[in-house]
Amino acid sequence: MTESKEGNKLWGGRFTGATDPIMEAFNASISYDKRMWEADIKGSQAWVTAIEKAGLVTEEEKDKIISGLNKIREEWAAGDFQLQSGDEDIHTANERRLKELIGSVAGKLHTGRSRNDQVSTDMRLWLRDNITSIRQLLHNLIGVFVKRAKEELAILMPGYTHLQRAQPIRWSHWLLSYACMLQRDFERLESLTPRVNTLTLGSGALAGNPFNIDRKLLAEQLGTERISLNSLDATSDRDFIAEFLFWASLTSVHLSRWAEDLILYNTSEFGFITLSDAYSTGSSLMPQKKNADSLELIRGKAGRIYGQCTTLMISMKGLPSTYNKDLQEDKQAMFDVYDTLTGVIQVATGVLSTLKIDADRCRKALSLDMLATDLAYYLVRKGVPFREAHSMSGQCVALAEKRGCTLDKLSAQDFQTIHPLYTEDVMKVWDFESSVEQYQSPGGTSSSSVLYQISTLENWLKST
Amino acid sequence: MTESKEGNKLWGGRFTGATDPIMEAFNASISYDKRMWEADIKGSQAWVTAIEKAGLVTEEEKDKIISGLNKIREEWAAGDFQLQSGDEDIHTANERRLKELIGSVAGKLHTGRSRNDQVSTDMRLWLRDNITSIRQLLHNLIGVFVKRAKEELAILMPGYTHLQRAQPIRWSHWLLSYACMLQRDFERLESLTPRVNTLTLGSGALAGNPFNIDRKLLAEQLGTERISLNSLDATSDRDFIAEFLFWASLTSVHLSRWAEDLILYNTSEFGFITLSDAYSTGSSLMPQKKNADSLELIRGKAGRIYGQCTTLMISMKGLPSTYNKDLQEDKQAMFDVYDTLTGVIQVATGVLSTLKIDADRCRKALSLDMLATDLAYYLVRKGVPFREAHSMSGQCVALAEKRGCTLDKLSAQDFQTIHPLYTEDVMKVWDFESSVEQYQSPGGTSSSSVLYQISTLENWLKST
Amino acid sequence: MTESKEGNKLWGGRFTGATDPIMEAFNASISYDKRMWEADIKGSQAWVTAIEKAGLVTEEEKDKIISGLNKIREEWAAGDFQLQSGDEDIHTANERRLKELIGSVAGKLHTGRSRNDQVSTDMRLWLRDNITSIRQLLHNLIGVFVKRAKEELAILMPGYTHLQRAQPIRWSHWLLSYACMLQRDFERLESLTPRVNTLTLGSGALAGNPFNIDRKLLAEQLGTERISLNSLDATSDRDFIAEFLFWASLTSVHLSRWAEDLILYNTSEFGFITLSDAYSTGSSLMPQKKNADSLELIRGKAGRIYGQCTTLMISMKGLPSTYNKDLQEDKQAMFDVYDTLTGVIQVATGVLSTLKIDADRCRKALSLDMLATDLAYYLVRKGVPFREAHSMSGQCVALAEKRGCTLDKLSAQDFQTIHPLYTEDVMKVWDFESSVEQYQSPGGTSSSSVLYQISTLENWLKST
Amino acid sequence: MTESKEGNKLWGGRFTGATDPIMEAFNASISYDKRMWEADIKGSQAWVTAIEKAGLVTEEEKDKIISGLNKIREEWAAGDFQLQSGDEDIHTANERRLKELIGSVAGKLHTGRSRNDQVSTDMRLWLRDNITSIRQLLHNLIGVFVKRAKEELAILMPGYTHLQRAQPIRWSHWLLSYACMLQRDFERLESLTPRVNTLTLGSGALAGNPFNIDRKLLAEQLGTERISLNSLDATSDRDFIAEFLFWASLTSVHLSRWAEDLILYNTSEFGFITLSDAYSTGSSLMPQKKNADSLELIRGKAGRIYGQCTTLMISMKGLPSTYNKDLQEDKQAMFDVYDTLTGVIQVATGVLSTLKIDADRCRKALSLDMLATDLAYYLVRKGVPFREAHSMSGQCVALAEKRGCTLDKLSAQDFQTIHPLYTEDVMKVWDFESSVEQYQSPGGTSSSSVLYQISTLENWLKST
Repeated sequence: MTESKEGNKLWGGRFTGATDPIMEAFNASISYDKRMWEADIKGSQAWVTAIEKAGLVTEEEKDKIISGLNKIREEWAAGDFQLQSGDEDIHTANERRLKELIGSVAGKLHTGRSRNDQVSTDMRLWLRDNITSIRQLLHNLIGVFVKRAKEELAILMPGYTHLQRAQPIRWSHWLLSYACMLQRDFERLESLTPRVNTLTLGSGALAGNPFNIDRKLLAEQLGTERISLNSLDATSDRDFIAEFLFWASLTSVHLSRWAEDLILYNTSEFGFITLSDAYSTGSSLMPQKKNADSLELIRGKAGRIYGQCTTLMISMKGLPSTYNKDLQEDKQAMFDVYDTLTGVIQVATGVLSTLKIDADRCRKALSLDMLATDLAYYLVRKGVPFREAHSMSGQCVALAEKRGCTLDKLSAQDFQTIHPLYTEDVMKVWDFESSVEQYQSPGGTSSSSVLYQISTLENWLKST
Repeated sequence: MTESKEGNKLWGGRFTGATDPIMEAFNASISYDKRMWEADIKGSQAWVTAIEKAGLVTEEEKDKIISGLNKIREEWAAGDFQLQSGDEDIHTANERRLKELIGSVAGKLHTGRSRNDQVSTDMRLWLRDNITSIRQLLHNLIGVFVKRAKEELAILMPGYTHLQRAQPIRWSHWLLSYACMLQRDFERLESLTPRVNTLTLGSGALAGNPFNIDRKLLAEQLGTERISLNSLDATSDRDFIAEFLFWASLTSVHLSRWAEDLILYNTSEFGFITLSDAYSTGSSLMPQKKNADSLELIRGKAGRIYGQCTTLMISMKGLPSTYNKDLQEDKQAMFDVYDTLTGVIQVATGVLSTLKIDADRCRKALSLDMLATDLAYYLVRKGVPFREAHSMSGQCVALAEKRGCTLDKLSAQDFQTIHPLYTEDVMKVWDFESSVEQYQSPGGTSSSSVLYQISTLENWLKST
Repeated sequence: MTESKEGNKLWGGRFTGATDPIMEAFNASISYDKRMWEADIKGSQAWVTAIEKAGLVTEEEKDKIISGLNKIREEWAAGDFQLQSGDEDIHTANERRLKELIGSVAGKLHTGRSRNDQVSTDMRLWLRDNITSIRQLLHNLIGVFVKRAKEELAILMPGYTHLQRAQPIRWSHWLLSYACMLQRDFERLESLTPRVNTLTLGSGALAGNPFNIDRKLLAEQLGTERISLNSLDATSDRDFIAEFLFWASLTSVHLSRWAEDLILYNTSEFGFITLSDAYSTGSSLMPQKKNADSLELIRGKAGRIYGQCTTLMISMKGLPSTYNKDLQEDKQAMFDVYDTLTGVIQVATGVLSTLKIDADRCRKALSLDMLATDLAYYLVRKGVPFREAHSMSGQCVALAEKRGCTLDKLSAQDFQTIHPLYTEDVMKVWDFESSVEQYQSPGGTSSSSVLYQISTLENWLKST
Repeated sequence: MTESKEGNKLWGGRFTGATDPIMEAFNASISYDKRMWEADIKGSQAWVTAIEKAGLVTEEEKDKIISGLNKIREEWAAGDFQLQSGDEDIHTANERRLKELIGSVAGKLHTGRSRNDQVSTDMRLWLRDNITSIRQLLHNLIGVFVKRAKEELAILMPGYTHLQRAQPIRWSHWLLSYACMLQRDFERLESLTPRVNTLTLGSGALAGNPFNIDRKLLAEQLGTERISLNSLDATSDRDFIAEFLFWASLTSVHLSRWAEDLILYNTSEFGFITLSDAYSTGSSLMPQKKNADSLELIRGKAGRIYGQCTTLMISMKGLPSTYNKDLQEDKQAMFDVYDTLTGVIQVATGVLSTLKIDADRCRKALSLDMLATDLAYYLVRKGVPFREAHSMSGQCVALAEKRGCTLDKLSAQDFQTIHPLYTEDVMKVWDFESSVEQYQSPGGTSSSSVLYQISTLENWLKST
């Protein structure tokens, strides 16, 4: 009954050879999975409650284990927990410490539990709790979009398609387009949460639990919404992480598009916005430079996040059933994406809250050819089929280009040479405000329509 | 009022230079987007109804357009539709044909509509309708898993972790683990559908619709569940495709794992299953070969599907607001993933329906060391802490290995040298059936627990 | 000695069950691998020469087979080859046709050859020959960059970092920066070619060739540079495709950056260039629009190409030794990337050849703050440490901003309040041409330095 | 002439607003780029030598700067360097420290240099030097493959295609197949090195260097093989990292395949090998388990490495010319891939050096149907066309299956019923050793052919 040399490894009993130190480092996850210390303790406390109910430990033993775990929680919280060289992961570390604190009764904690269901449980609890933070950050950011949209409703700017000036729009309409993307992101995050917040504890290594453990009790203790149906599936199900990583990827792609827009609007050439110094950096060489590093980082992080998603998807592809060590790639991906995305959202919130919009330059960037569609609609309203009207309007644009003048310098006569239904009142087309106000259908850029979008989002923000 | 030389291009009015033919080919999407002919017609018929209500066409004109479109539908359905060289996409082709059939009134159809909202509408309708097919195929496949699980409950096989024999499990338990993954896939598909089935028509090129078009009417006509809130967002929102592509990726990763298991079980070395000839292929060189090509293709397709997801995600990253032509990559990705995944599911269904399981070889593959956990549990039940019991059991395994015998050849005395609490009845451990029947907690591999999984899934199948 | 029902499948001898038609479609590759018809014939003609030398066919039989294959080549070239329903791939199709043309002696062609080495050979020959086309297209494109750089040396424009105006540069310098990227691409393509152009024929299914086939003779016949060393490796080595796909990815990323620059320069806001109509498209709704679709497609295709690279990399990951059917994903990826990239390069060449640069607007976009570095260098030349000088120059910029004037409106006195070493001649700094001409070190933007870049590239173009 | 509040930021002169601390953390790279401290010092020492030659600092100043940098090197080497809160990256940290050590003359070091060319230089030097380590590790690993292949030449095992037993091969042949893949990896690494080892210093922020800096001198000092041709390209060229990341991806895919093979060979079912305890781990639950965690980690890391490659490729896609902050993603990707891959190679070397091959079980896994090709070749050697012979052999296999016996239990008469040319001596086919020895052509599995592969690789190892 001698103790193994590698006593604090959970599986030390049978092995005789020593482990290669490079292999030890390659295998260890403690440097990053220690972040889950609280989830690990929470899971163990629920577990000991369940095995006490199943008669595997006495009430006294349970209490001893729970209070030992409480002590460990305090050590972690205070930054006093001392890692030791054999602590390959957070589960080993906590159990090793528990044994130091309460003696061999600690050895009963792992009864009927496997690292396979334990690690799944820890990750699920960790992610569930941290999703709450992301939700809050996202809610704040959407709130800023909506607030600015409401306050700056009067500002007109060019709407672009293909980065070419297309039609005049409201700045608020542009702001709200990103609020809508993020609202979808929020909805998707809510919809994946129950698949994160699922109890897998009690699945053992693969075959389930042989001690009639009460999994409903575990679910109550841990506050999970669901209980996994099949233990083989449960021990290697990493869908919840893959979903989270892809969710973060799509969210970050949205913010990369927003960053791209603002990087453009922040150029000398567009000049629509000014970033706060707090989100700009200078050049080590060029004294005049003020770079939108914050936005460029946001744009670039979309690559990083999807890179992590790719990591996990490749690791899972073609894996045999149940747990294989390849899945260890799940944790760093999850932590890195969490850290990256929360950084992205917070910086985005800061940037958006503090940037200044230059209403004048926006207005000056509206050019008359952006009303060419209205020139076509003019004829449409007089019964000309749109296709024909579109062609006529194109000819007006071409004529002005040929003359080297802006469209409003063409005379009514000029217009009539192109189509007889153009009459004097065609000149009323040249009003950006009126043009914008046409778009009254839901979703459009008129003030009423934009206000409707605002109130819809405000109500939604209040209700979530 | 001359007709443009490039008359049937929707934007032919202004341009003077000719298009490079390589550019023309590079730009054209008709070779693949023609698949959406029906969605395009459906969208146009709804649109003409709405613009009639808005007073932009007369009832007579509307009827003419609708019946022209009906004629076009018939041509497509019959395979009679003739593409012409200027038909760069399905929208252009259908409109060109409409003009041929009903004359210049066809030119009114596009009033207030842009290709931007039109193409979004077509893709959404196409995908929504085809998701229905995928749901059905997936439902069938899950059904086969559950059915086999019910019929073959008695078969025991080795459960593996790390591809090492771990604990004995039921074959049905293994089958159901994949049913559970696919059930999650099914749930995820349902949850993304409303974001596909959203009306974006009426968003125009970007700014919305200026003719007070009734978008609720459009939504009714097209059977969509939602109406997009912001036109800028709506015209370039490809989240619904990205979600679908990732959804398909995760589903195909599940099936790649299943394929991997079966490829292994189909080797001479495992020998658990025999594939039907219908899903095997031979070798051009080696006459004895019977290869599981079907399963290898399924495994490989996971790479292809995620590759397509990657394509779209990269294309969207850092794109400026609203529509940019980069988004054209969305369509081939969507079609290819749809075709690939429906192929994968159907072939998987065929493979699973027809493979034979060899219960004898499965049973023979159960080895006594797979009961080592039970040897530990034996002591646990006598009050030994699990950690210590685990270590003792490891020593039993090591002793048997040292003796070169199987575990059941050790005597009770041998066991007692390792731990005094091992008594005569330790020999009862060597029964695989009893071992499996221990796992009664929900999710486990005992028959009661597996039957509960089956009935849960059966009920779910009935209700969806 | 009855013929199998599935006679023209290469492996039809042993099977009894029918194949599922969905499986048949899933498995077949003929719809795309028929592109390799010529490589397949070439490989077969070399093979029959080698097996004749090995005494496995007579000279007469060889001649019969070769002339039969010549006939098949003519059929393909003329578009007359008729595919039949059992032709699952190009190898089967050609062999089936050979048998029709010359009878059962056709059955000797496959002696000692496997589809595994045959398909590898076909792909290598196909890709090798098509790399030659890519080289030529790339050479052309680089030539256009260099030619324009030479002709338009006098044009100054703003150089940007972080999309902020940084320092004035020559337009030619900008052009050449892309020529340099593409030159690296060209070099990389050359360096991977020998690994494509490697003989794998003679590797059999996996174990090699048992008939003392002369592989040097095969290499000569097929013009390969190397002979594979190990048959197990050779039959499933797809490195050459992975390398090609990644090569194409990096090349397309370069062109995506170039496209991004031009899309920006083509906006109303920058206004530096005008695209030829041949590479622009219009809007179906907005008559004034002229969109840089060509460039947006080029930018987007970078995603598609890397998506295909991802497909293959995932498919290969974790595959067991030698050939597995998962590798079938290699072909569509290879063809699609070839087609996509050659389209991209050709369209890029067209765009670049025909775009107009507006030297005036480029010059007008130079702003005085872009000379702030020169203001620091002014002090550096008088002995002030650069860090201090940089800080002083920054204060000059801040002063001008505060005054709301441009830098050249500050007086010498103003400068002296910031640093006493600023004297009257600081006003000479305000000359963009002189500023640019400072950068004489190799790589810089002065005319001499740019001309050196041009002549270096011209010489390289001549020599390749 | 007041010092900026943010004095040790390189660009502190102009800004007035404070930086958001979240932004500060988001922007900082010091936590990881400090690994390049030595490259940074090396680059700075070369730089000061060059600016002294250009007359920008005196010899005395140069010496002071060089010895200050030497002191900093010592601090880093001894682990004594103290980071401070404003040190956002390694460049800032070293320059801040230099100023503390030698005073304001430190401010001259950055003359004519930008962080853009500095960071590029640091990364290139770092990677170049570390590639040398990778080369050595890879060389070692290939050496182990070749050594084992030489020592264990006599061992026969089943060769698999599609994971089905195909033909008997030598274990050494299998080993060498991976040596060949790694040899290609080695060659690729050598071929990319000159593009890493390129001097970009002297490119400034983008426009080049205005002080006639001698870049040839810099190249000599830093030992680079090339000098970049164009400064715009040079400052944002990250091809060398992308190439390295993809190189590592392909290498790790090879090792993932090798790991997959060994994971299979290490199962109870195959049983060909035994892993050393040093590279195995146990189960926390199941005492008998000995898992090939080392190999599973190797397999999984292929996903991680390609994930990092994806990160960089996405970040670069569509970036405007020259440096943008998105490129900051390059460093963590480079470091992580370096660490991961060197871990993978070292663990692979350990695993391969210590695993035991069980020649007996390998031999016992050879089954007679693996000689079916030989049964076809028997007829081919008597003049039967291969196609027909293949079909006959398939019928022999089918006959044995039908009889429920192995092929060697069929009598000569049985064979004759299938084809008259089968005579008594067909029984000689049943010898695995002879079968293997047929494959004498280069690349094959006969001993002569394998020995040729070994000596080729040995010579190559000696010469590199």
